[in-house]
Amino acid sequence: MKIHNFSAGPAILPQYVLEASAAAVQDFANSGLSILEMSHRSKEIVAVMEEAEKLVKELLHLGDDYAVLFLTGGASSQFYMVPMNLLNEGEKGCYIDTGAWSAKAIKEVSNFGQVEALASSKETTYNYIPKDWTLPSDAKYLHITSNNTIYGTQYHDMPNPDCMLIADMSSEIFSRNFDATQFDLIYAGAQKNLGPAGTTLVIVKKEILGKVQRTVPTMLDYQTHIKKASAFNTPPVYPIYVCLLTLRWLQAKGGVAAMEAINKQKAALLYDEIDRNPIFKGTAAVEDRSMMNVTFVANNKAHEAAFMEYCTANGISGIKGHRSVGGFRASIYNAMPQESVAFLVELMQNFKPE
Amino acid sequence: MKIHNFSAGPAILPQYVLEASAAAVQDFANSGLSILEMSHRSKEIVAVMEEAEKLVKELLHLGDDYAVLFLTGGASSQFYMVPMNLLNEGEKGCYIDTGAWSAKAIKEVSNFGQVEALASSKETTYNYIPKDWTLPSDAKYLHITSNNTIYGTQYHDMPNPDCMLIADMSSEIFSRNFDATQFDLIYAGAQKNLGPAGTTLVIVKKEILGKVQRTVPTMLDYQTHIKKASAFNTPPVYPIYVCLLTLRWLQAKGGVAAMEAINKQKAALLYDEIDRNPIFKGTAAVEDRSMMNVTFVANNKAHEAAFMEYCTANGISGIKGHRSVGGFRASIYNAMPQESVAFLVELMQNFKPE
Repeated sequence: MKIHNFSAGPAILPQYVLEASAAAVQDFANSGLSILEMSHRSKEIVAVMEEAEKLVKELLHLGDDYAVLFLTGGASSQFYMVPMNLLNEGEKGCYIDTGAWSAKAIKEVSNFGQVEALASSKETTYNYIPKDWTLPSDAKYLHITSNNTIYGTQYHDMPNPDCMLIADMSSEIFSRNFDATQFDLIYAGAQKNLGPAGTTLVIVKKEILGKVQRTVPTMLDYQTHIKKASAFNTPPVYPIYVCLLTLRWLQAKGGVAAMEAINKQKAALLYDEIDRNPIFKGTAAVEDRSMMNVTFVANNKAHEAAFMEYCTANGISGIKGHRSVGGFRASIYNAMPQESVAFLVELMQNFKPE
Repeated sequence: MKIHNFSAGPAILPQYVLEASAAAVQDFANSGLSILEMSHRSKEIVAVMEEAEKLVKELLHLGDDYAVLFLTGGASSQFYMVPMNLLNEGEKGCYIDTGAWSAKAIKEVSNFGQVEALASSKETTYNYIPKDWTLPSDAKYLHITSNNTIYGTQYHDMPNPDCMLIADMSSEIFSRNFDATQFDLIYAGAQKNLGPAGTTLVIVKKEILGKVQRTVPTMLDYQTHIKKASAFNTPPVYPIYVCLLTLRWLQAKGGVAAMEAINKQKAALLYDEIDRNPIFKGTAAVEDRSMMNVTFVANNKAHEAAFMEYCTANGISGIKGHRSVGGFRASIYNAMPQESVAFLVELMQNFKPE
């Protein structure tokens, strides 16, 4: 049975990426060696790092005023690295609280500076993106979580504040057109739209760095990794290589603009069915619906177990909603084929609760 | 041509591990999914994490007073995490400086507490392990680098200080018998003797944690990862899985004691040739020679380029010495077959400088 992988992350990867990833474990670049056992200083691996960095810049139309890093530690490590590298004591980082991940980011700031949550949708289980807030004049940066995996919400208009703008784009990077040059720092754990677990993409405007007074541990200073092109220490070679394969696939598909067009179609297919089908309803505010994570519940809670069983029996995997929202979450990242979304819609149409 | 991979790291992995690693990228545990796209909360991946932890404890004969973690950030991140988690301001970490990696570890301490290097072999390019030092009475811990990849030196008698004992065992973990219960914290980047780049094994005695006053960022607190069995955030699933395969291979081979016997034979084969062959000489003090990284130079510098060429022409890879030592370094980790060591010895015997 074909498995349709709707997992929120680690998540589906393109078939081309999986095939090339497996081949590289057996013999990489005709070296006679597995990519898993090759020195990160070898010309083959240095070429991987360079091409990955170059493709990120090309896909996001970024110039040399930005650095592209492949770090470890997940987006969770960026929660403290951002204030550690950007806030002096007494300086203020501002956050919009749009979910559990925003809240975790907020929690790490006070070790390094002041923190202010400008708005939160926590009271309604984060089912919308707050738009009604005022940036304080002493804000050093504004931090947003541009797509909220758990709740299925997404910024459709990015803020444009009078301070640095920082975004956690883990679950949407490369899924749609946006002006990356409006951002000072973007980070994304790879395991949603980019690759497997094990590396975190960080895109940073170089001029914002080196301005804090504190001594930052060598490994936690973005500048350390910029100087050494992400290879100050041994980088997570294989996860980065799988990201590179995805970046190549993205470029061959026509880049981010082409991907956005496909993603819009896929999301529309699913949201249309949710809105049409009397058995289901969406959980996120319509104007903030995510193109990546589609959250919905059954109008009658009692029908959820049966639909889950029906999905599982038909090869739909990873569609269970997060416990805080319940119901279902279909993650339809870049690599998700339209046919799989259509197949899920078909199951929704055919589902007859007892 | 068969490639014999003598790289210092990322380094050779057992053939069984490479085959199973490639297969898992195609279909893991009959799930119909690649391991790269499976949720870290799935039962299959949770089982990987649990088995890896269990095997580490079994192989090192450790009880439940120890925690086994698979983190990211490399051994380099442990350089600051150790003092951050173990030293209050004013408390002292003591170090033996046996190489570039020890020196990097020493550099990170003063952010968190006091640091004292008790001895160093830097003046002789770290070609021996200093044994003549006195532990100050206020030492909170003693940190050693038990095997020094670059210089080919290794502790053959572990110190037994009246304070916590901490070791960076990156390039020798699981290569020989030792009493792990004498250590309070052991860390090892995976990419030498354990797996690919992308995860770092940390073994820590639980009772030493939670005793510092400072607020540690959530992701940098060992206790965070202990509470969540290395899955507080998305762990580097694939690198950990490859480690698990190596651990299984190790156990099937008879464990660490059996591995030590084989490693002794391999090292003896190579050192005997270095000592016998008038063209070459070893660089490390004989009593401190490493079983893992065998460093040697040509007595006549002019012969080195020719021997390197001869090696390359015969499929020997990764044998160039580190620039600080020069000459050659044959890394003969657990996965290196005896036949490859014998082949290198044969080349040394057949080599006729012009």
